[in-house]
Amino acid sequence: MNEWFMHPLRVRYQETDKMAVVYHTNYITWFEIGRTEWIRHAGLSYREIEERGLLLPVVHLEASYLQPAQYDDLVTICTRVTEFTKVRLRFEYRVVLGDRTEGGAIRTSQEEPEGKLLAKGGTLHGWINSDWKVVGLDRAAPDVYELLRRTAEGEAK
Amino acid sequence: MNEWFMHPLRVRYQETDKMAVVYHTNYITWFEIGRTEWIRHAGLSYREIEERGLLLPVVHLEASYLQPAQYDDLVTICTRVTEFTKVRLRFEYRVVLGDRTEGGAIRTSQEEPEGKLLAKGGTLHGWINSDWKVVGLDRAAPDVYELLRRTAEGEAK
Amino acid sequence: MNEWFMHPLRVRYQETDKMAVVYHTNYITWFEIGRTEWIRHAGLSYREIEERGLLLPVVHLEASYLQPAQYDDLVTICTRVTEFTKVRLRFEYRVVLGDRTEGGAIRTSQEEPEGKLLAKGGTLHGWINSDWKVVGLDRAAPDVYELLRRTAEGEAK
Amino acid sequence: MNEWFMHPLRVRYQETDKMAVVYHTNYITWFEIGRTEWIRHAGLSYREIEERGLLLPVVHLEASYLQPAQYDDLVTICTRVTEFTKVRLRFEYRVVLGDRTEGGAIRTSQEEPEGKLLAKGGTLHGWINSDWKVVGLDRAAPDVYELLRRTAEGEAK
Repeated sequence: MNEWFMHPLRVRYQETDKMAVVYHTNYITWFEIGRTEWIRHAGLSYREIEERGLLLPVVHLEASYLQPAQYDDLVTICTRVTEFTKVRLRFEYRVVLGDRTEGGAIRTSQEEPEGKLLAKGGTLHGWINSDWKVVGLDRAAPDVYELLRRTAEGEAK
Repeated sequence: MNEWFMHPLRVRYQETDKMAVVYHTNYITWFEIGRTEWIRHAGLSYREIEERGLLLPVVHLEASYLQPAQYDDLVTICTRVTEFTKVRLRFEYRVVLGDRTEGGAIRTSQEEPEGKLLAKGGTLHGWINSDWKVVGLDRAAPDVYELLRRTAEGEAK
Repeated sequence: MNEWFMHPLRVRYQETDKMAVVYHTNYITWFEIGRTEWIRHAGLSYREIEERGLLLPVVHLEASYLQPAQYDDLVTICTRVTEFTKVRLRFEYRVVLGDRTEGGAIRTSQEEPEGKLLAKGGTLHGWINSDWKVVGLDRAAPDVYELLRRTAEGEAK
Repeated sequence: MNEWFMHPLRVRYQETDKMAVVYHTNYITWFEIGRTEWIRHAGLSYREIEERGLLLPVVHLEASYLQPAQYDDLVTICTRVTEFTKVRLRFEYRVVLGDRTEGGAIRTSQEEPEGKLLAKGGTLHGWINSDWKVVGLDRAAPDVYELLRRTAEGEAK
């Protein structure tokens, strides 16, 4: 259960800064790409969730920076769920150097991601509706709740 | 008529890239800040215009890069309207080094902006409604049309 | 001592996302603007510090999101130092709605910033040289160390 | 000769704005990704070129916007060279909806890219060295010149 889901990306020139490494806020954007792809892996897209009137804004985030990523590096965003309730969702992230998926194939891992660790972090989210009111996902969209729960808890699909 | 409107800003670290200068797309974002402040100078905010269901997306843009801006530079975005009709609006921009407004005071100029020229460009826009249909601003919002027209044509307010 | 330093900014269209509020990573960029202006207030620019071969990368950051900022809002970034040693620097931030400086005047406050709180957070930094080696600021640049220390500790300048 | 080179990407949440579509400057960043991948397809990486002390800044750019891309869309950036000399390089771009490469396989086309056209544009670049002086690529790096020339002119490799 609680597997890491791997998603590769290549560092953009636009993401570098005058220190000649990736500007620190871009890792936070990568975290979002990680959880977007985790949700897709769970069986639906975050876009579909929003189209059903549900939003999942960030309530809290943290990040630690260990080694800088550089322009044109391939990096892998590793994402897993560490808390799953009706009203909130917590993700954990690792950014490691290199493409750990071998060309974009779906890859998950029970183990801590191997490879040079560049950054790690976490985000906490709450479910709200389009009026920005807190909702319980289990009642607002039981099918979405069930899909996400299964992957979050590592059940066989 | 057809005055340049000046707006200063300071270059953010986030706007630099590994060439140690401002990444080229950020000038395009600055152009938008320039026209936003031009509209505010005309007497209302672009936010209010959007709240009335009107949008002004970019249809075409161009930019020329002469000298790079650097981190922490103060630069001045100079904006003027070069075409004003019921359905479209064309802006022209100059980005010059230094704060030409002396601390953010309102400043306009008939003359070509003085100072070291870093970049210049233009954008063409069309008015649409919230269904993304083309609209004539004179009928959709006559008061907005009139406010913008006066400043675009350089009439005394 | 340990005053909040206030710096206003206006939300850019580019900083919004499809949720029609400010995308969450932009607050992290604003934190950087806050500490840049705190350093300038202390008596020199971060640009000068980098020109002397010293860098202050982010080692850790966290942020909490309370209320969303919207397009064209004026917000104030409030910054103070909460840890100051030879090798590291910790900043704390508040983002509140409205311009609390009354048009950009220098303003500091011993009190918790008043006004609607949108986000808060902190960043931890370490001093390194251009070879990315950890340095003690007191030896690498005693004058910079002294300037920053005085403001961090709230001494009269 | 003069083939279009196709590169797919997925629209990031961060790239949207409050109009609920992709903010216009991001297409300009995508153009850069297009030319970066075109160069890689030609046989080396732009990163290696920079490591040899050569830079290829943007001198002029233009873009036309036809239909907006939306969050989570797959789009394909199509890139070709339309001018190739010792001192300058001109690229042309098309952004079309959908992944035209079928999962990231290398794909080029003599024909105008099929599919719904979202945006198009062009960029002009000049070769400079690390002192920002204009250089002739044929003398500064004959092997790089030859590699790029072959692909630009559509010769069999």
